[in-house]
Amino acid sequence: MSDLIAQQGGDEERWAALCQWEMRRAVEHLGETAPLLAEMANYHLGWTDDFAADVRYRGKRIRPLIAMACAAAVGGDEAAVRSAALAAAVELLHNFTLVHDDIQDQSEQRRHRPTVWARWGTAQAINAGDALYAAAHLALLGAAEAGAKAEDVLDLVRGFEATTLEIVSGQVLDLQFESRTDVTPDEYIAMITGKTARIVEYAAGAGAWIGGAGPDIAGDLAGYGMALGIGYQIHDDLLGTFGDASETGKPAGDDIRRKKGSLPVLLLHERGTADERAYIDHAYRSEHVDDAMVEQIIAMMRTHEIEIEMLSRVETYHASALAALERTGLPAERTAFLVTLTTRLQHRTS
Amino acid sequence: MSDLIAQQGGDEERWAALCQWEMRRAVEHLGETAPLLAEMANYHLGWTDDFAADVRYRGKRIRPLIAMACAAAVGGDEAAVRSAALAAAVELLHNFTLVHDDIQDQSEQRRHRPTVWARWGTAQAINAGDALYAAAHLALLGAAEAGAKAEDVLDLVRGFEATTLEIVSGQVLDLQFESRTDVTPDEYIAMITGKTARIVEYAAGAGAWIGGAGPDIAGDLAGYGMALGIGYQIHDDLLGTFGDASETGKPAGDDIRRKKGSLPVLLLHERGTADERAYIDHAYRSEHVDDAMVEQIIAMMRTHEIEIEMLSRVETYHASALAALERTGLPAERTAFLVTLTTRLQHRTS
Repeated sequence: MSDLIAQQGGDEERWAALCQWEMRRAVEHLGETAPLLAEMANYHLGWTDDFAADVRYRGKRIRPLIAMACAAAVGGDEAAVRSAALAAAVELLHNFTLVHDDIQDQSEQRRHRPTVWARWGTAQAINAGDALYAAAHLALLGAAEAGAKAEDVLDLVRGFEATTLEIVSGQVLDLQFESRTDVTPDEYIAMITGKTARIVEYAAGAGAWIGGAGPDIAGDLAGYGMALGIGYQIHDDLLGTFGDASETGKPAGDDIRRKKGSLPVLLLHERGTADERAYIDHAYRSEHVDDAMVEQIIAMMRTHEIEIEMLSRVETYHASALAALERTGLPAERTAFLVTLTTRLQHRTS
Repeated sequence: MSDLIAQQGGDEERWAALCQWEMRRAVEHLGETAPLLAEMANYHLGWTDDFAADVRYRGKRIRPLIAMACAAAVGGDEAAVRSAALAAAVELLHNFTLVHDDIQDQSEQRRHRPTVWARWGTAQAINAGDALYAAAHLALLGAAEAGAKAEDVLDLVRGFEATTLEIVSGQVLDLQFESRTDVTPDEYIAMITGKTARIVEYAAGAGAWIGGAGPDIAGDLAGYGMALGIGYQIHDDLLGTFGDASETGKPAGDDIRRKKGSLPVLLLHERGTADERAYIDHAYRSEHVDDAMVEQIIAMMRTHEIEIEMLSRVETYHASALAALERTGLPAERTAFLVTLTTRLQHRTS
């Protein structure tokens, strides 16, 4: 079985190349009338002439990997190849939302360089996002060329729109939460379910379906994606507050310094005393959260065992993802790669 | 034949109601997780509790009317009914671009009230546009429920993405033109071809196709839409500079006052003397274009017969639209409504 894992590790790069090819094919129409549109998209996607930099700029590409790995788990490598169009669509959808999110959050940096809006302005960055979303659909339609029946591709498109609406709804809530101090951990989980996890659920479920799964197995793999997606975001929140600076490249407590209402601070808000709550609210209303404030809040988190709670939640969601894999009843060698991937994600430090 | 025109005039309202119903069906999912998303969409689309105001807020809904009228020209009223999903998709696509355009142009008013971004801020308005675009796709998929074959709906979706990319490319160019003083009338026509006319071309061609047209007639009707779309925008530009204030609700020379690089000023730039060009450039670089400047520029336009040139271009494109209708070879009673519509649009004063 370890041979198979090694082989599927090799597949991972080949799958990434296939997905990349489908992405390029969908995006290449962008420059036909307005070269700037292609320039912005290529820049955002990390398609420059600098190969080493490109890899750094492309992000982790977890979502397409999950789509293709779920297709492979059900239908083998040949199914993964057929799911490349879906994988490309999912990654382009994700990147469309990133371009718009960066405008909405006024984030000036992503993947170690200026964001699209920071470089070309808000107005053109809105266009770049819109065009990437149209291109995502073009990629998805490629599933028909890969042999999927037209009726089934229509279902894929239908799910794609529903997923988009949940991502956008999650983003609406996220922005609304910024002006509230009473967001509960449960509300937060509901928000990240839409904003972050639904797309992983879709990638996994649709990938499985392209691999030939019936509704039960596709449903289990969708559930796998959902649990993994929530776990992934909670893990991000864990690293954003308790991460090791030498690994994450960001100082510990970075989310607090940036006044992000991520899960650790919401949990502290829920568990803390009235005085502690007042202190957090005061800090988050200050123009700058200074080092002393960050330390004070992290000390409160220590008292209330927030890091332990976060670790426990990360573990719970990853365990739930693995349980969903089990439920598929697929042979262990078929799910081995997904199990490895899940463990790798659970233990990432950046 | 005049009876038929009257009947199709009656059809117009019924078609609008059918399209409206399909739009509502696609948009009703928006509020499921984030009520604000539905609130913004309903507001923008003019679906409030004030019926009289609603009609004013909804815009002219020309694009879906053209889709349904082209379907009817080929396949009769029954075909128009089947094209309602397409019509709704086209109108939602148009409205998605309007919400984003208003952010990009920093326009604070549309259809007699604050724009979405002016009311809810840029970040949430980006979400509203994104969600309307996803909803537009959901509407389009409704064509499958209306009996279109799945393969054919995939083609509709493919054309929808290509149309979107051309609209967005047109918007990219439009924004780029703002910082240039050497835009030629030809470049401008190419820009509005993408930004304004392609969607009319798509509406007409796809409507015809749903009506059962073969490629020749669908191509002619697409050409009809393209010519009408360009003519429509040039007419808008004509009214924006030479329109009668009592009809348009805006003072004459409004486009000049707002420093818009619309066609009249580009034509003047091309035809004017070096001194006149310098004057226009000076005025457009001033913080405010005052009444004296507007009058001076309109006087120059009179010298160079710009209004006559504009009227002639409007006429040319509408004549070309009518010629495309002729080329279809459809019986006159079938195209009567489109002929009437074309004439009505050509002679509109607001």
